Amino acid sequence: MSPPPPIRFGVIGCADIARKVSRAISLSPHATLYAVGSRSLSKAQTFAKSNNFPDDAKVYGSYEELLDDPNVDAVYVPLPTSLHLRWAVIAAKKGKHVLLEKPVALSAVEFDEIVVACESSGVQLMDGTMWMHHPRTSFMKEFLSDANRFGQLKSIHTVFTFCADPDFLENDIRVKPDLDALGALGDEGWYCLRAILWAANYELPKTVLASREPILNKAGVILSCGASLYWEDGKVATFYCSFLSNLTMDITAVGTKGTLHVHDFIIPYEEKKASFYAASESSFDDLVTKWGSEPSKHIIENDLPQEVLMVSEFSRLVAEIKFKNSKPEKKWPAISRKTQLVLDAVKASIDKGFEPIQIQE
Amino acid sequence: MSPPPPIRFGVIGCADIARKVSRAISLSPHATLYAVGSRSLSKAQTFAKSNNFPDDAKVYGSYEELLDDPNVDAVYVPLPTSLHLRWAVIAAKKGKHVLLEKPVALSAVEFDEIVVACESSGVQLMDGTMWMHHPRTSFMKEFLSDANRFGQLKSIHTVFTFCADPDFLENDIRVKPDLDALGALGDEGWYCLRAILWAANYELPKTVLASREPILNKAGVILSCGASLYWEDGKVATFYCSFLSNLTMDITAVGTKGTLHVHDFIIPYEEKKASFYAASESSFDDLVTKWGSEPSKHIIENDLPQEVLMVSEFSRLVAEIKFKNSKPEKKWPAISRKTQLVLDAVKASIDKGFEPIQIQE
Repeated sequence: MSPPPPIRFGVIGCADIARKVSRAISLSPHATLYAVGSRSLSKAQTFAKSNNFPDDAKVYGSYEELLDDPNVDAVYVPLPTSLHLRWAVIAAKKGKHVLLEKPVALSAVEFDEIVVACESSGVQLMDGTMWMHHPRTSFMKEFLSDANRFGQLKSIHTVFTFCADPDFLENDIRVKPDLDALGALGDEGWYCLRAILWAANYELPKTVLASREPILNKAGVILSCGASLYWEDGKVATFYCSFLSNLTMDITAVGTKGTLHVHDFIIPYEEKKASFYAASESSFDDLVTKWGSEPSKHIIENDLPQEVLMVSEFSRLVAEIKFKNSKPEKKWPAISRKTQLVLDAVKASIDKGFEPIQIQE
Repeated sequence: MSPPPPIRFGVIGCADIARKVSRAISLSPHATLYAVGSRSLSKAQTFAKSNNFPDDAKVYGSYEELLDDPNVDAVYVPLPTSLHLRWAVIAAKKGKHVLLEKPVALSAVEFDEIVVACESSGVQLMDGTMWMHHPRTSFMKEFLSDANRFGQLKSIHTVFTFCADPDFLENDIRVKPDLDALGALGDEGWYCLRAILWAANYELPKTVLASREPILNKAGVILSCGASLYWEDGKVATFYCSFLSNLTMDITAVGTKGTLHVHDFIIPYEEKKASFYAASESSFDDLVTKWGSEPSKHIIENDLPQEVLMVSEFSRLVAEIKFKNSKPEKKWPAISRKTQLVLDAVKASIDKGFEPIQIQE
């Protein structure tokens, strides 16, 4: 049996991140760059040219036209968060599968509307959290799930920060209340929270408490914040995200029997190789002057970058639906929703003056 | 000029940690194992024999006798925390310099009594936080102090956990309310808080908030806890400590321009070599698919283990006082006090149901 033909992607919006994902679509054997749409036709033409779209790719001067093209199987939506609800719902209603940038919406309530639209149309919905698709992530999960090597998760700390330049802090959509009202929490905290939920097997915390004194810009958009999360079983998580600190992306997960360290979990240092550190039943020598053994470094090679693997996995699911009449995979929107739900709780805790927020599904 | 004769140490108490420090005293060229005292003479004799005390070392069946020996210059006090106040004050009053295990007291109020006694007698007081004396610590500090490589400290997370065995959790002095009432907070949190203060140039936070749901044993002693700390300038710190998780000892410090990672800050993996990771102005490539450069690993070799360097530094200060009529170095008790003060605030926050505690010097 020959493999199914590649899934035809339409990219709506020419954001910076769309360059990376367009390249990923072009590198995936299961996907093809079919169309790009922008509110400006010339912007779309320039984008198509500079991002290796095929010569016969469709270039549209509006999102509507792209969504009306019956040959578009799936759309990639890198638009500002405030536009997700509108365009993801329209795309779904027009039968397009939706690869949606994170944060998936301004709130879980909004996201639920997107989910309903996708479910009604039977289209696949997945968010653009690339590191989920890196093979390293599975290896780390294997370690965290190993009762002998890691035991029970007790605490986890995640960090995502980068040092935005003055232009970003003035003009980027991620600091604009009408575009990405969740600021650093939506852009960076999303990854921190996803990593925490991932490590906790997507069990929701019962309580979320924002760190006191987040940093906001004049318009009230979060530039830096954090929170602590508490589970029924005593597990604790903390995270910190910021546009105002050096680029850092950490997971430190400590279990009863093991410890995981990774310092580049969102975007690995290198495209085709990534590592993490695992320690198990760590101990000292008799006099407590040195360790019995050091954590071991695990190196994972990947033939394709993680964003390509994301596009391939999404395309595989779309092909299953398109050619084999399968149902959409519900796991992906489910974990998007949980991430957004906890993110909402952090935001609510900040808005309520650092009150603990009980999470309800 | 010949070097001053070695400082004559008396060890009061035969705790496990006293084995490590006795070895350190014997390895330091500036100190000598002169005496050991225990409430049981035979215990003291056994300890002296199995810890390479010289044949002519004095062995006492009580702390008082040791403290009455005029040839004892300094005492090392590894007693349970609840006994620190009493014995450190008696030692100071008898003119002995005091190397005091951490936590230095059950509270800063108690510690202040020890400080007053030491100041009145003109004796040196230093706590037993060994990693302060590792040369790696100075190199890390140099990095953190570098405006170009690290910039301004924005956030720091520290962890110290180890997985205590059932016997420890039942019988160790660190889980007994009458001996070490501060439990994991005193034993492990001490290091986490010291690292945070160290990184913050010993500037006290203005607010301390304990993590919700610490784990206590039946007697109410802390087995696991954490907190977040807030400074006037927006700096944030978090820590986590536990007797119930795999051995982990981390500092993750993020500045505007740099990031520090160290995974064995309290006791290095090896006795004579230690490393840390430093990253500066970290960035992505143009397409945000990989990093511009990886953090650099810095390896520091030390000819003597850190606990020996601690004993040597303490002995150097004592010799300055003894032979050159110098004043005691106030830096060491000052940082002990600050550590205890913040530790007290964490405890108060727990006791008050996770209220934020304002720190007042």
